[in-house]
Amino acid sequence: MSDQSEFFKPAPMEGNGAYNRSSSVQAAGSLPAVRLLERAARAVPLPPAPELLVLADYGSSEGHNSFAPMTAAIAKLRERVGRSRAIFVFHTDLPDNDFTALFQTLGNDSNSYLSTDPAIFAGAIGRSYFVQILPASSVTLGWSAWAIQWLSRVPCAIPDQVQVAYSHDLSARSAFTEQAAEDWRTFLTMRSRELRNGARLVVLTMATDDSGDFGYRPVVDALYATLVDMVDQGLIRQEEFRRMVIPTFGRTRMQFIEPFAKNGDDRIWTEFEANRDAHAFGAQWAAFCRASVFPTLAASLDEARGDARSATFMDQLEAGITARLSAAPVQMTIPLAQMTLLKAIDET
Amino acid sequence: MSDQSEFFKPAPMEGNGAYNRSSSVQAAGSLPAVRLLERAARAVPLPPAPELLVLADYGSSEGHNSFAPMTAAIAKLRERVGRSRAIFVFHTDLPDNDFTALFQTLGNDSNSYLSTDPAIFAGAIGRSYFVQILPASSVTLGWSAWAIQWLSRVPCAIPDQVQVAYSHDLSARSAFTEQAAEDWRTFLTMRSRELRNGARLVVLTMATDDSGDFGYRPVVDALYATLVDMVDQGLIRQEEFRRMVIPTFGRTRMQFIEPFAKNGDDRIWTEFEANRDAHAFGAQWAAFCRASVFPTLAASLDEARGDARSATFMDQLEAGITARLSAAPVQMTIPLAQMTLLKAIDET
Repeated sequence: MSDQSEFFKPAPMEGNGAYNRSSSVQAAGSLPAVRLLERAARAVPLPPAPELLVLADYGSSEGHNSFAPMTAAIAKLRERVGRSRAIFVFHTDLPDNDFTALFQTLGNDSNSYLSTDPAIFAGAIGRSYFVQILPASSVTLGWSAWAIQWLSRVPCAIPDQVQVAYSHDLSARSAFTEQAAEDWRTFLTMRSRELRNGARLVVLTMATDDSGDFGYRPVVDALYATLVDMVDQGLIRQEEFRRMVIPTFGRTRMQFIEPFAKNGDDRIWTEFEANRDAHAFGAQWAAFCRASVFPTLAASLDEARGDARSATFMDQLEAGITARLSAAPVQMTIPLAQMTLLKAIDET
Repeated sequence: MSDQSEFFKPAPMEGNGAYNRSSSVQAAGSLPAVRLLERAARAVPLPPAPELLVLADYGSSEGHNSFAPMTAAIAKLRERVGRSRAIFVFHTDLPDNDFTALFQTLGNDSNSYLSTDPAIFAGAIGRSYFVQILPASSVTLGWSAWAIQWLSRVPCAIPDQVQVAYSHDLSARSAFTEQAAEDWRTFLTMRSRELRNGARLVVLTMATDDSGDFGYRPVVDALYATLVDMVDQGLIRQEEFRRMVIPTFGRTRMQFIEPFAKNGDDRIWTEFEANRDAHAFGAQWAAFCRASVFPTLAASLDEARGDARSATFMDQLEAGITARLSAAPVQMTIPLAQMTLLKAIDET
């Protein structure tokens, strides 16, 4: 097993609003979980005034995909507490997240919950959610979408893939499984401190379905094959390629403990069936990859993040994936897990 | 009076940690006010648990200069509430502030209050403090240093200066005075909503002293003369120069209503007296200008912020100011106002 210090932590999503623009798969996948959040907002016990009514959005990225769930939850809470009670929404992500994009979106977008409700307040917390980042028993309602599939670290190299789900290396598969278990336990422990008794947390995340499928196979194949081409053409060095690892993990139902897994709605496929535009099909999945995992792969390049070679690398990788997927559009499986976690009222 | 839409709002401080590195004048000037904050922390009425104990740092920039005041206030509060009660610190600034630098500093700097006290929590609010940005009656202790001298907008051009304090244009002086009065009223109104009854807010800001002196005259002269040279040399266009306005305003004692004004400690002069290093003297004041006002001036250049010409402009302006001030080092007056504002307990 390689020394892991040479690997990179998950890189932040591509900044300057890129994640906001290219995360439609994530937005569509979140919709069923928004209904779980609405149900939680109707049922959750509320703190008596003047205690603060706190919503936490764990792993918000640039915020755009948080509008629908936060707005839906706020609407249900408003039915219970009236229009004047203050509600505070915390968006959390890693320190190098683009918080300026988050606050600009919150301040300028007409869909922002800030634009319509003067008793809503918003803040950001730029700290890893693998530690406690909110006061004990302060959160009434939590939400985390498309976030906790990212591991806290890369446990090891993957000799035959960039995504462990399609690796045949047992040692790598085992190391990723252990890391995923540890991260999930840590996440739950920290949230259980932050949640009030009776509070609820709705989690939506990539998953492995009951047949063992992580999904996205054509996308992952296209991504890996394009990278192999880039090595062959000398565009990226073998050593850079070896370091490229996407530290996401699709946990199984068993690994979540009483979750339920469900296939997401493949909006991109539905569009393709309607318009038969193969290029658009490929381009949309390539944009999905770019928004979520390209910065992590580019972190393995020898040069600094954000330089010209990194931009060229991302453009060519996007073009290669687009070309490969356009050549033979297929429906994608999109396994997702969604669950509502409830902090039991402590009777002691 | 010109159409104000061509002017730029105050630009954020130079990012990537530049403000953290070049704001030693601001840090030194804040020290006496830290004692006011400690006094406020000892005296302010505290909310009963489980209500959140909230500190707000209005206009934090990248956070480095907030460590000393926040740590001092927290120490005094800990004497009153013990070690386990949660304290939440909100750092607020405009959306385009470098919040990543703020969170990285909070997370990595060994002087950060987060590194020593596990019951402290920190968040950022990327919204203008000229609106209400925290829930009603939620803040126990407020701090604002080197921030409210920045006006919310540029009210008009300044025909003979970039800083209105040294302009002889009565119309410009009047427009800036009115804007400063309106902004101060708005700031106080919004804070009075956010502060709990009995809460205290300590404000440190540039000011005009009782003799009418805004201070910094040699720095402002060097800045203006360097810009004139740059126009003469064709490095900046006349129209760009005309747009360059630093929208800061030193309010007078009368304008603050019962403040007290005091001359700041000129640390840079004290150092010069000790080491007679004229270049270091000039370079430190040039760095002070760069950290605080260069981005605002560069916003008037025709090209986008952050491009090569903008970088060259800042480097040459810094070199010109360094050269001018090194040629004849003089002690600077540094008028500052500091005050503690107390929200009276509402007996109704």
